[in-house]
Amino acid sequence: MSHNSFGHLFRVTTWGESHGPAIGCVVDGTPPGLRFRLSDIQALLDKRRPGQSRYTTQRREPDEVEILSGVVSGDAEGELISTGTPISLMIRNVDQRSKDYSEIAQRYRPGHADIAYDIKYGLRDYRGGGRSSARETATRVAAGAIARLVVPGVRVRGALVQIGSVKIDRARFDWHEVDRNPFFCPDAETAERWTQLLDDTRKRGSSIGAVVEVVAEGVPAGLGAPLYGKLDQDIAAHLMSINAVKGVEIGNGFEAAELSGEENADEIRMGENGEPAFLSNNAGGVLGGISTGQPIVARFAVKPTSSILTPRRSIDAEGQEVEVMTKGRHDPCVGIRAVPIGEAMVACALADHYLRHRGQTGRG
Amino acid sequence: MSHNSFGHLFRVTTWGESHGPAIGCVVDGTPPGLRFRLSDIQALLDKRRPGQSRYTTQRREPDEVEILSGVVSGDAEGELISTGTPISLMIRNVDQRSKDYSEIAQRYRPGHADIAYDIKYGLRDYRGGGRSSARETATRVAAGAIARLVVPGVRVRGALVQIGSVKIDRARFDWHEVDRNPFFCPDAETAERWTQLLDDTRKRGSSIGAVVEVVAEGVPAGLGAPLYGKLDQDIAAHLMSINAVKGVEIGNGFEAAELSGEENADEIRMGENGEPAFLSNNAGGVLGGISTGQPIVARFAVKPTSSILTPRRSIDAEGQEVEVMTKGRHDPCVGIRAVPIGEAMVACALADHYLRHRGQTGRG
Amino acid sequence: MSHNSFGHLFRVTTWGESHGPAIGCVVDGTPPGLRFRLSDIQALLDKRRPGQSRYTTQRREPDEVEILSGVVSGDAEGELISTGTPISLMIRNVDQRSKDYSEIAQRYRPGHADIAYDIKYGLRDYRGGGRSSARETATRVAAGAIARLVVPGVRVRGALVQIGSVKIDRARFDWHEVDRNPFFCPDAETAERWTQLLDDTRKRGSSIGAVVEVVAEGVPAGLGAPLYGKLDQDIAAHLMSINAVKGVEIGNGFEAAELSGEENADEIRMGENGEPAFLSNNAGGVLGGISTGQPIVARFAVKPTSSILTPRRSIDAEGQEVEVMTKGRHDPCVGIRAVPIGEAMVACALADHYLRHRGQTGRG
Amino acid sequence: MSHNSFGHLFRVTTWGESHGPAIGCVVDGTPPGLRFRLSDIQALLDKRRPGQSRYTTQRREPDEVEILSGVVSGDAEGELISTGTPISLMIRNVDQRSKDYSEIAQRYRPGHADIAYDIKYGLRDYRGGGRSSARETATRVAAGAIARLVVPGVRVRGALVQIGSVKIDRARFDWHEVDRNPFFCPDAETAERWTQLLDDTRKRGSSIGAVVEVVAEGVPAGLGAPLYGKLDQDIAAHLMSINAVKGVEIGNGFEAAELSGEENADEIRMGENGEPAFLSNNAGGVLGGISTGQPIVARFAVKPTSSILTPRRSIDAEGQEVEVMTKGRHDPCVGIRAVPIGEAMVACALADHYLRHRGQTGRG
Repeated sequence: MSHNSFGHLFRVTTWGESHGPAIGCVVDGTPPGLRFRLSDIQALLDKRRPGQSRYTTQRREPDEVEILSGVVSGDAEGELISTGTPISLMIRNVDQRSKDYSEIAQRYRPGHADIAYDIKYGLRDYRGGGRSSARETATRVAAGAIARLVVPGVRVRGALVQIGSVKIDRARFDWHEVDRNPFFCPDAETAERWTQLLDDTRKRGSSIGAVVEVVAEGVPAGLGAPLYGKLDQDIAAHLMSINAVKGVEIGNGFEAAELSGEENADEIRMGENGEPAFLSNNAGGVLGGISTGQPIVARFAVKPTSSILTPRRSIDAEGQEVEVMTKGRHDPCVGIRAVPIGEAMVACALADHYLRHRGQTGRG
Repeated sequence: MSHNSFGHLFRVTTWGESHGPAIGCVVDGTPPGLRFRLSDIQALLDKRRPGQSRYTTQRREPDEVEILSGVVSGDAEGELISTGTPISLMIRNVDQRSKDYSEIAQRYRPGHADIAYDIKYGLRDYRGGGRSSARETATRVAAGAIARLVVPGVRVRGALVQIGSVKIDRARFDWHEVDRNPFFCPDAETAERWTQLLDDTRKRGSSIGAVVEVVAEGVPAGLGAPLYGKLDQDIAAHLMSINAVKGVEIGNGFEAAELSGEENADEIRMGENGEPAFLSNNAGGVLGGISTGQPIVARFAVKPTSSILTPRRSIDAEGQEVEVMTKGRHDPCVGIRAVPIGEAMVACALADHYLRHRGQTGRG
Repeated sequence: MSHNSFGHLFRVTTWGESHGPAIGCVVDGTPPGLRFRLSDIQALLDKRRPGQSRYTTQRREPDEVEILSGVVSGDAEGELISTGTPISLMIRNVDQRSKDYSEIAQRYRPGHADIAYDIKYGLRDYRGGGRSSARETATRVAAGAIARLVVPGVRVRGALVQIGSVKIDRARFDWHEVDRNPFFCPDAETAERWTQLLDDTRKRGSSIGAVVEVVAEGVPAGLGAPLYGKLDQDIAAHLMSINAVKGVEIGNGFEAAELSGEENADEIRMGENGEPAFLSNNAGGVLGGISTGQPIVARFAVKPTSSILTPRRSIDAEGQEVEVMTKGRHDPCVGIRAVPIGEAMVACALADHYLRHRGQTGRG
Repeated sequence: MSHNSFGHLFRVTTWGESHGPAIGCVVDGTPPGLRFRLSDIQALLDKRRPGQSRYTTQRREPDEVEILSGVVSGDAEGELISTGTPISLMIRNVDQRSKDYSEIAQRYRPGHADIAYDIKYGLRDYRGGGRSSARETATRVAAGAIARLVVPGVRVRGALVQIGSVKIDRARFDWHEVDRNPFFCPDAETAERWTQLLDDTRKRGSSIGAVVEVVAEGVPAGLGAPLYGKLDQDIAAHLMSINAVKGVEIGNGFEAAELSGEENADEIRMGENGEPAFLSNNAGGVLGGISTGQPIVARFAVKPTSSILTPRRSIDAEGQEVEVMTKGRHDPCVGIRAVPIGEAMVACALADHYLRHRGQTGRG
């Protein structure tokens, strides 16, 4: 496949730059007959939308999604029904500040993709980061909203579990807390500590990294394939495709390296419902690349945004040594807004594997 | 694409089960005119071959590779030249013990894919793990040997950097040490500590996890694509497709979550050779999904093998609760043999992106 | 890949229905640095645009193309430069008549996809044919306009060579005539005969089939791959994907069945320019799936449009037997407007193979 | 995907050259639980096998197929059950005559791929045609044998309907005749005429073209997708990938160009079984890219083999003008052996679309 698409049967193609007229995506492979409203997509976009707290970029984008194809109207007011043809979604760019980009046009911001794009393509749309801008992720969230409809009964939720070196307390993990603070933090006490940490970071014009956890419940057993179509492999790839992500783990992840086989094995008993019941979930819901019916658990590390006020040494397009300082509207912790994006990417991977599984085994 | 292939222009399809007549792979997309010897592939296979020390499974497989297509003979004795047509490689299975598999045929070994396969497919080749056996990875190493030829000047090396909670000392990292101990350990002192740790583990019939690091030097700048064809995304997917891998990271990986933007940014100066010179490599050689010319650095976590002597609670295919204990020939630490496999998967990802880059930009 | 995309490295995804707000496509894989103007795309769209003569549908669509991503402005007024990121093109639907579609909503028009869609999807957007409307082909023409820029020096031209049983006279084939009549006919005398034939057809509310020929000159030798990536195979698939196409041939096509090996072989001499010169082109520019540098010649048969005034027997969605007569604005010969579409599809296939060839051999 | 594979969920990768040690294919995506015997595959291979009459090449290959993976043994003697993992099939090359290939190594045989391969790859395996040899098609037939099992109730049959300018008489079409003559001819009288025609052709060391028809009955309605995943498009592509094929048509094909809409429309009534019953099948079983439940009818034109005894003008690898005459064992009419190959390719396309349909709509 080409390089701005992902998925196999549930296939998403995204397009658009930060400062072009619009961004959007084409969602191909949606089964016919799914019922939803545009407001379902909008609600998820609003979660990701910038400018909602002082901890995210102050760019003001309404992020209003338009649906251009792939649906007919249902009977109820505002209800849409998918027809099975590609769904085209578009979001107009509104708040593109007509600022002077001549500096970043010529200077490579350390940690940003500027130098890599210039090496590869010989030119780039430097306005607001162009294609590598975090704006593109709005289209992922929109696609993810469709993806959530594909697998019946699945629920995909994300939370921020670490900012800098401050981790949540697992004993206090509560999904209800996630919507009560500006960090998608499932632990109220940690959320308070993060408030101070991020206020400090923001005031210093600095930035900080984070870890996001995404959990999918209600995933049917049997999704995935043994070796190169592993469900966890595709989830990892989907998450690694998010900008600024540097690591991904499934289940207990890197911690598994420290365990013995006895500690790591998830023992199995028969549940009261007559289904196999695992006594733990170190595997993160996947064995041999195939879902077991347990919750899928994935985590990913997001690096600190590279746009900071402290000058850093770099070079310009002419090869002159310069110092670069990035002013402008930036997230002190891009990990926060990565939560709904991570959810969307996991939802897309699940939708794709659900359709693949139905095709290949006829057991879905 | 279907689910036993990987790559886009450099495309590998593997086949075979542990106890069938053979395993193999088809390597498609090799450029014409590459010169090599069968012994080049064999040498890499020998690195992965079981039974070379007491720390790996005692199954005795010569792993002799045959080449069935895609080459003509060169002028020199034994020299082969690729023609650009698919290269078919086959390895005969030799040491399939005719043991009694009736127990694992019916009982689901915790941590193994047994239950997942049965849920998905309704049947499985349980002999020696079937398709999910580590034997399959021999074909990856063979494919990787071809991949290494594709990108001129690239060098891909791997090392084991952690077993259980014992990590190497970075200050003592020495590639020369890697071949001097049975662990691919780059640090002689740590190798000694691992000797004792693994002897203990082996004697208890237990197992232990590990972390592997793969470094690719000489990677041309410009490989990869911005969003869904990211080089690091594909490396992550390739590594996550290896059995037992639970986490992957690029550059400083999860550590990036703990850093500030100032700490994490790799500053740039001009090198003496007139090329950009990065002052650090937190990014692991990739910015915005595109290689920068710095070494690519990836790490992955391997869980402890699930085949252990201590009985674990499980169920059988009839839903009866049972205890399972896995006798037989197993690696106490599968992470050891994962080193050449990880190298191979990174080499394949680089070969694929090298060809894609040449196609799409004409700048390679 | 999913089912609304085509191509491998030059990859086009189209979306949109006849009576939705817009139609469009995403062109992925365009090399960076291509210079063009929006008017270059518009000019090709205008060729396909309906309502230009009494022989095409009277639907009045301005077909004004918008470019939403993938370019930056060049120095010259109106000049655009591709950046290598996906190019999103959109065409608003304007003349969607708010007519009563209740009849075709319920009744299956013979020869149309109505019944097939209902069988497959259980529902369809019946307004104006929905996704299967010929309107979708405007997006192909737009994508083809980009494709033409990818292969340096290539020229892709199409002509109508047969309507009903009236074929052009090969001896009078003149590319200059193609733009001088409403049929893209390369033979002025035949164009006159077609005028009468089509006036008759139109007045009777009937329709008629046609054959289109597309010729690509300046195609570099070496594009294509031996067996399943054959250049002619992909051209055939691209052309067969156009609505109403029932047959495709390359070079002398079905006529080859009647020839002996002596007659069919294209003999080779050395040309004055020191290049191989073929003495004939029965092969249509492709040997063994690979271009030889001769012009690529492809033809495809277009069936008569199924929308006719004569009542035909059919059934409705309830399984009742009915008679169906299709009023409305229709092309009496859809083959006419298929000419620029065929050009576009051949251009896309060539662009894709050009990039693939560069990637895989490094000889482009 | 890479260029030696075809299909999407039912995916076949072939490998091998005429004079290498073996040829083979990997069939990926087979659903688990299919029951068959190796002799089922062998029987189809025997149909294609050379040397069975004086009208096909005298190369003597037993074409004995080995199955290397993807199955377990069933209860009955010789019964195999697919496990869902890739099925690897291999056929050893036996009768590679150690003749002197120095002539075709240097001289480009007109009509053959020799010159195209040298242009593209810079080298080729010239022994027996290398990768472009008709031997490769044995692997397609083997893959097709698996494909036939995938779609329940489907029957795919082929027949030769034209050699040179001698066509069968449609009124005498009888499937039972197909196996009673060496031409797969469904019309006994025409078979007799062909006997003389081909004896003449063979004695003159000449060759002649042909047209093959493939009919698939019992194809479920709903397979295919509207625009770029059209069932007829994929069948066309699969057939065009066969060596020497120059044209493909579906249903009435090129004849549709000569018809009016009234003549071409397949009218619909309700059948006695309560299902829609088409009164004709001009469409060849596909409307809008989607199967309707009618038989799929496809035809393809095969050019005369380019290996003939009459000298033809050509050049050699040094650019010297030469005359080329091709001695050796060749089919006077490659169209004959193309019959089982065409069946296999249609079966593969149907298997793939069957799995895709199940995945994407859940209605299969």
